[in-house]
Amino acid sequence: MGMMIVTKEKGIETWIDNLKKLNTDIEIEVYPEVKDKDKITFALVWSKLDIDFTEFKNLKCIASMGAGVDHILSNNTISKNVYITKVVDDKLVSSMWEYLLCSVLNILTNHYKYIAQQKESKWEQLELNSIEDYTIGFMGLGQLGGEISKRFNSFGFTVKGFSNSKKQIESIETFTNLDGFLNGVDILINLLPLTEDTKGVLNKDLFYKLNKNAYVINVGRGSHLVEEDLLEVLDSKHLSGAILDVFEKEPLPKENKLWFHPNIIVTPHSASLTDSNSVSKQIVENYKRVRENLIPYNIIDRDKGY
Amino acid sequence: MGMMIVTKEKGIETWIDNLKKLNTDIEIEVYPEVKDKDKITFALVWSKLDIDFTEFKNLKCIASMGAGVDHILSNNTISKNVYITKVVDDKLVSSMWEYLLCSVLNILTNHYKYIAQQKESKWEQLELNSIEDYTIGFMGLGQLGGEISKRFNSFGFTVKGFSNSKKQIESIETFTNLDGFLNGVDILINLLPLTEDTKGVLNKDLFYKLNKNAYVINVGRGSHLVEEDLLEVLDSKHLSGAILDVFEKEPLPKENKLWFHPNIIVTPHSASLTDSNSVSKQIVENYKRVRENLIPYNIIDRDKGY
Repeated sequence: MGMMIVTKEKGIETWIDNLKKLNTDIEIEVYPEVKDKDKITFALVWSKLDIDFTEFKNLKCIASMGAGVDHILSNNTISKNVYITKVVDDKLVSSMWEYLLCSVLNILTNHYKYIAQQKESKWEQLELNSIEDYTIGFMGLGQLGGEISKRFNSFGFTVKGFSNSKKQIESIETFTNLDGFLNGVDILINLLPLTEDTKGVLNKDLFYKLNKNAYVINVGRGSHLVEEDLLEVLDSKHLSGAILDVFEKEPLPKENKLWFHPNIIVTPHSASLTDSNSVSKQIVENYKRVRENLIPYNIIDRDKGY
Repeated sequence: MGMMIVTKEKGIETWIDNLKKLNTDIEIEVYPEVKDKDKITFALVWSKLDIDFTEFKNLKCIASMGAGVDHILSNNTISKNVYITKVVDDKLVSSMWEYLLCSVLNILTNHYKYIAQQKESKWEQLELNSIEDYTIGFMGLGQLGGEISKRFNSFGFTVKGFSNSKKQIESIETFTNLDGFLNGVDILINLLPLTEDTKGVLNKDLFYKLNKNAYVINVGRGSHLVEEDLLEVLDSKHLSGAILDVFEKEPLPKENKLWFHPNIIVTPHSASLTDSNSVSKQIVENYKRVRENLIPYNIIDRDKGY
């Protein structure tokens, strides 16, 4: 009975410390340094790694370290009997909310433009914008999008929401068809799960359906965005700017054009980092449940992909 | 019976349009092009101009276009019988709140640091900060500071407040002595009125009493800040950064060092612009009251200076 951690990210020691604090008996190994593969019943996984899960005959559950599970589902060596779980955590919601509100307020108060003006020592007061003038469009109304769209609405913004299956959220107009949703949107926020259907959804066609001078914020996955299309529509002046936190290839390669475009803000996949201290409890809880042959919490639907 | 507008700022036509919309009979002249000085009973003033108010014998009221009145009080040609009024407006509060929350969230979510990293195509995830880790200190608990400190508290921040006279604000620890107030503050926000007592209050002594790595946000007046002291304490690494919206000399001269410091954000006195459309109503109301020998609304105490 043991757990293995599978990730390319830093901070494995902190995870191990936090997990052991909650359960000193837990045996944790770090892939690929696993002594007895048959002992592994539970895998805690973040990065997309070239791992063959069929080698772990007694594996019962693969837990994502974050809210997304696309990095797990893209691996086709996972038996149908293995549960896949995601993280559901208030801290994920609050850090994502803070990141998104920050980005939206930077647009509203012209902060991004003033930071650009400062580079040229340029003093020019721009017109004051009003919250009432902005419609925010949320793509993805799951754990994060559902809660955060409500907070934006309470803050004073008009909010529209799009999701694959119809959702009911108070004071928010929700859609399952893209065209109706995109009409009139000034700030588009993408929080969709990455699936075969949503790959490349942030493309030229979509951008031109947003209001002129709209902004796009991508905190979903890099593969949602067609990078070349974004650059083209920014240069056509239909879009005013983009704030990107996730990329097709991470870390974003030094030479990628996105780094250098004057109307793009790049942040290093930092909108919502999993706090191992806050999340370890649910991981240990699920580890115990699996050992006792119980169904773990927060399992995802493999057919839907989230 | 007439009104004159005294300002160096742009946008006088918009003011005149908005005032006339509310009262078509109102006669408005723009200083210094005033035909009959004896006709002027009401002055709407923004910039600090070299004007001799004693030449206007029938002047009864000087109305500031904004929340501050220091630009008026610094003129010593104003008779004791002349009322001085300030603007009290929800839009001033909301635009200041949006500006300040934006600045604070840029600190919390490392946005300023990521914008700096982007210049070097640098991908580095910084530690996620928590709202609970920040104490915000408000200097000035008047119309703006009183309301906005409460909003920061509701958002989740610990808030302390300083004012000249003791104020009671729910959930906020308030002080009338600086040392007790400054102790433990991570983000200092200055919204004090500018008076002889508060000039230069943002100086070296004060900065060193803030927590190490603190930030300073000045949205009061430029003369509150000793610019050289700020630069010194930033370079000593005691402070992490400053966000400045107001300056001793505005527009901030092209060669001023504040423009170029890597840890200073400069915005062009844009935190809270008076919206003439929203404010004209109270100006016209006061103009009418003065004509009817009534005391205008929102008069300031000339001894206190605010």
